[in-house]
Amino acid sequence: MKRLLLAALALTLAAPAHADTLIDNVNGITLDKDGKLVRFTGLLIGTDGKVKQLLDRKDKRPERPDFKQDGRGKTLIPGLIDAHGHVMGLGFKLMLLDLSDTGSLAEAQAAIRKYAAENPEMPWIIGTGWNQEKWGLGRFPTAADLDAAVPGRPVWLERVDGHAGWANTAAMAAAKITPASKSPEGGRIEGAGGKPSGVFVDAAMRLVDSAKPKPLARDLDRALYLAQQKLLEQGITAIADMGTTIEEWQAYRRAGDKKQLAVRIISYGGDIDNMAIIAGSEPTPWLYDDRLRMVGVKLYLDGALGSRGAWLKAPYSDAPGQKGLPLLTPAQLRNKMVRASMDKFQVAIHAIGDAANAEALAAIADLTADLATNVPGERRWRIEHAQIIDPADIARFAELKVIASMQPIHQPSDRIMAEARLGPDRLKGAYAWRSLQNAGVRLAFGSDVPVESANPFAGIAAAISRTDARGEPFGGWRPEEAVSRETALDGFTRTAAYAGFAEDRIGTLMPGMRADFLIVDADPMLASPDEIRRMTPLETWIGGYRYYKQKDGATVGR
Amino acid sequence: MKRLLLAALALTLAAPAHADTLIDNVNGITLDKDGKLVRFTGLLIGTDGKVKQLLDRKDKRPERPDFKQDGRGKTLIPGLIDAHGHVMGLGFKLMLLDLSDTGSLAEAQAAIRKYAAENPEMPWIIGTGWNQEKWGLGRFPTAADLDAAVPGRPVWLERVDGHAGWANTAAMAAAKITPASKSPEGGRIEGAGGKPSGVFVDAAMRLVDSAKPKPLARDLDRALYLAQQKLLEQGITAIADMGTTIEEWQAYRRAGDKKQLAVRIISYGGDIDNMAIIAGSEPTPWLYDDRLRMVGVKLYLDGALGSRGAWLKAPYSDAPGQKGLPLLTPAQLRNKMVRASMDKFQVAIHAIGDAANAEALAAIADLTADLATNVPGERRWRIEHAQIIDPADIARFAELKVIASMQPIHQPSDRIMAEARLGPDRLKGAYAWRSLQNAGVRLAFGSDVPVESANPFAGIAAAISRTDARGEPFGGWRPEEAVSRETALDGFTRTAAYAGFAEDRIGTLMPGMRADFLIVDADPMLASPDEIRRMTPLETWIGGYRYYKQKDGATVGR
Repeated sequence: MKRLLLAALALTLAAPAHADTLIDNVNGITLDKDGKLVRFTGLLIGTDGKVKQLLDRKDKRPERPDFKQDGRGKTLIPGLIDAHGHVMGLGFKLMLLDLSDTGSLAEAQAAIRKYAAENPEMPWIIGTGWNQEKWGLGRFPTAADLDAAVPGRPVWLERVDGHAGWANTAAMAAAKITPASKSPEGGRIEGAGGKPSGVFVDAAMRLVDSAKPKPLARDLDRALYLAQQKLLEQGITAIADMGTTIEEWQAYRRAGDKKQLAVRIISYGGDIDNMAIIAGSEPTPWLYDDRLRMVGVKLYLDGALGSRGAWLKAPYSDAPGQKGLPLLTPAQLRNKMVRASMDKFQVAIHAIGDAANAEALAAIADLTADLATNVPGERRWRIEHAQIIDPADIARFAELKVIASMQPIHQPSDRIMAEARLGPDRLKGAYAWRSLQNAGVRLAFGSDVPVESANPFAGIAAAISRTDARGEPFGGWRPEEAVSRETALDGFTRTAAYAGFAEDRIGTLMPGMRADFLIVDADPMLASPDEIRRMTPLETWIGGYRYYKQKDGATVGR
Repeated sequence: MKRLLLAALALTLAAPAHADTLIDNVNGITLDKDGKLVRFTGLLIGTDGKVKQLLDRKDKRPERPDFKQDGRGKTLIPGLIDAHGHVMGLGFKLMLLDLSDTGSLAEAQAAIRKYAAENPEMPWIIGTGWNQEKWGLGRFPTAADLDAAVPGRPVWLERVDGHAGWANTAAMAAAKITPASKSPEGGRIEGAGGKPSGVFVDAAMRLVDSAKPKPLARDLDRALYLAQQKLLEQGITAIADMGTTIEEWQAYRRAGDKKQLAVRIISYGGDIDNMAIIAGSEPTPWLYDDRLRMVGVKLYLDGALGSRGAWLKAPYSDAPGQKGLPLLTPAQLRNKMVRASMDKFQVAIHAIGDAANAEALAAIADLTADLATNVPGERRWRIEHAQIIDPADIARFAELKVIASMQPIHQPSDRIMAEARLGPDRLKGAYAWRSLQNAGVRLAFGSDVPVESANPFAGIAAAISRTDARGEPFGGWRPEEAVSRETALDGFTRTAAYAGFAEDRIGTLMPGMRADFLIVDADPMLASPDEIRRMTPLETWIGGYRYYKQKDGATVGR
């Protein structure tokens, strides 16, 4: 991608005074500003990188555009916006050594050795995906097995299931593991006769994890580069970054300063302190031609369903003594919301359980009137995930004009687990997209990458079908909560933009908007859910420049 | 200044395509790139804000420049560059409530009340300058005296000499001061019968100081605004900010993003961690039309002479048991220098005592050869202050090509104290500007603002006369160390730019350089030291725009 970004930059600088671009002969689709589907066959882009005109079959084409591309009847859709992701989380995941394809210990050792040689500056080799069962090893691997591949540098590799870690001698030394080290509660240090063998199970993983060095700036820069590459390949042209730290923000700025920021990042500070040190006393302006802005703050009100951290009104069905718990007291939540709102930052509240959703709504209700009087402007409260909602609370989302920021792909991923955690009676308000929409709530869609793949087509397929990658369950899980294709597209474009105060520049392809679009290999308004799930962008354009072409990888301007 | 900055911005945006500016009929002075004095009578500036041409009396003027100003024979010099200051330190000093002009307790109370009313958002009222002797009060003031002016908010005011602080009841409550509070060693809590009266002497000041809230982003923004205003008034168009924190950097960026950064800031991170979080793995590019760049790191090797923290080879003359001490071990210093240099950051080492200077030189000598082999590019090592140097070490500055970054105004300020600390024998290498120059060392001059006033004319006067504001001592203190007018001007322009890797854009007025210049009320090549000390800019221009005009204050474009 580097080549491509630099190429795009060079083009920017070299662009002649009136270089219009025409993408013609396409099956063009966009929503208009009111959410109505609009079709077109040609897209005319001005030198400012904005849409100049949508052309109908009968419209006259400009005679000599500076650049013209024949779309050969392919489908053109707006660039997709991920309303909830973690850019650097994705980047760091992509930097990990991935051993999931190795078939033997020897293969794994070779892969580790190769990765270490290719990354001489990494102080630790960090990886994931090993599985001694698949290798037919008949035992856990050992530190000595790892030392044979990389003796000098610490190596720390998570097992495929995330429940064990494998360290070499250097990593154990860095973590000060000795024969005297004790297994913590809920964990186990493997090894005979008290001598640690190199494998650490569950809570014992923390002993080594905590010794890992903090990433350096160059690691952050590399992670951002890889994340952008992946997002461009997947057709994501903008993403709400939920919980930006100052270190991450500085990496975004470095990329922006060097004209290497391609994907638009709508940033939410990870809690109030991050928000304030990054943006100061008000949201930042849009920076780098609308590539970066901090608009708000993300507040964590509860945990997740899988770990039973989600805060429920009634006990977990599979753990009757537990209800999860709130991570903020009522006063803390409201204080943070007021502090952000007074300085005109948008507030996005992570709420997964029905009690957390109810409390988030209650807090919003408590503050709305006062803020309306004292702080001009729109709040656009967001609830992130809004996963399990008491049906009685659904109407309150609409009353309070709260945006439901949801991740359709979570539904098929969580289905079996959610049934166990909640039991049948509570599923009515689970992943209840259609009920929210029917109540008049705006739905912004995202992926929660890297918890899930960022692939927005998988998200659209889930949104319209309530099925998983194998098309199961047949007919969809609680299919009455599926949404229309228009709503799914809207959630990943127009409303995702609205949810980030960006609807005046991205999310639709109406004249005046930034020309962020994809050429794709199917028409999402016609294709089956399975076909949609397999869709990929052939080209990804941002601000009138092509940053990705499938055949060439992420490369070449126009 | 706000009005002015916005005005300048408006002008930038509105500037017609070929708006050349001619400042004509001036007594123009600049050094050329080799340091030779050049005189001119007209300055032609292009639309890019750069010098287009220096015009001699006989040169033909352009017939219709878009803007023309008659200099009426006034002197025009390059914008002055402060090679060592603290931008935010200046700003915060300017935000303090200043009581030094008050003649009675009642006057002070009125001033405090007024300031509190004018600054309703400040959580604490912080000030300085009170003197109960001058008030004829016959006693220390009390918390009750302060409560009468501001009851609700904490107030904390330093005495004029910095050796006592005066708190109101709210400040004492915030600091958890009770009748049970104990005076720390080296300090005294005033008050009869164990009841604190509100005044805290010397080390006891810390009890209240440590309770002060951290400045908010809006405080930083305000401080930057005030600092820029003051620098523009004083004719400083660029400044090396020695020891930037991430909070300060973010304020600079906010100003830059909003086009409210007028003065150019050449930033050095305060230690390695600040450098890395701000700039990442290499110096930043020049940002905002050459208004901001992080180029290096500042490392503190010792303290200051006044507090006997400067690290000397032999004991202090007035404290025979003390030699000061290094703040970094030899390994720490070299490790930090290597870490910065490997990533191409410039290193500026604070060294005041002769032992600190010798150690800084030794460290530079230790690393020079290795780095020359392994890291391409120039180092341009800087030693900050270089105040007391063993005459035997002076030649090493030149051998190692170390820039001596010195503050001429420190010499008259420190004279009496330095004589006491060092005794007569060691003064030979104290503030030894001329000896360094004669040895072939490049001298960059600054002010160390806010330790001293930023006024560069006071610095130039000191540099050429070795006298204080009253012209004492007659003939100058160790006048053999005075430098020529050309060298003084060079230290505040061309070499100050060179010291910050900025000589390709600022520091001289040769064609192609940024048009940063002053119209001043005397010719510094002809005026007496006393006249120079009283000189003020009539106008301050940066990048071809006028940001300050004496009669109007900091306001109005051209």
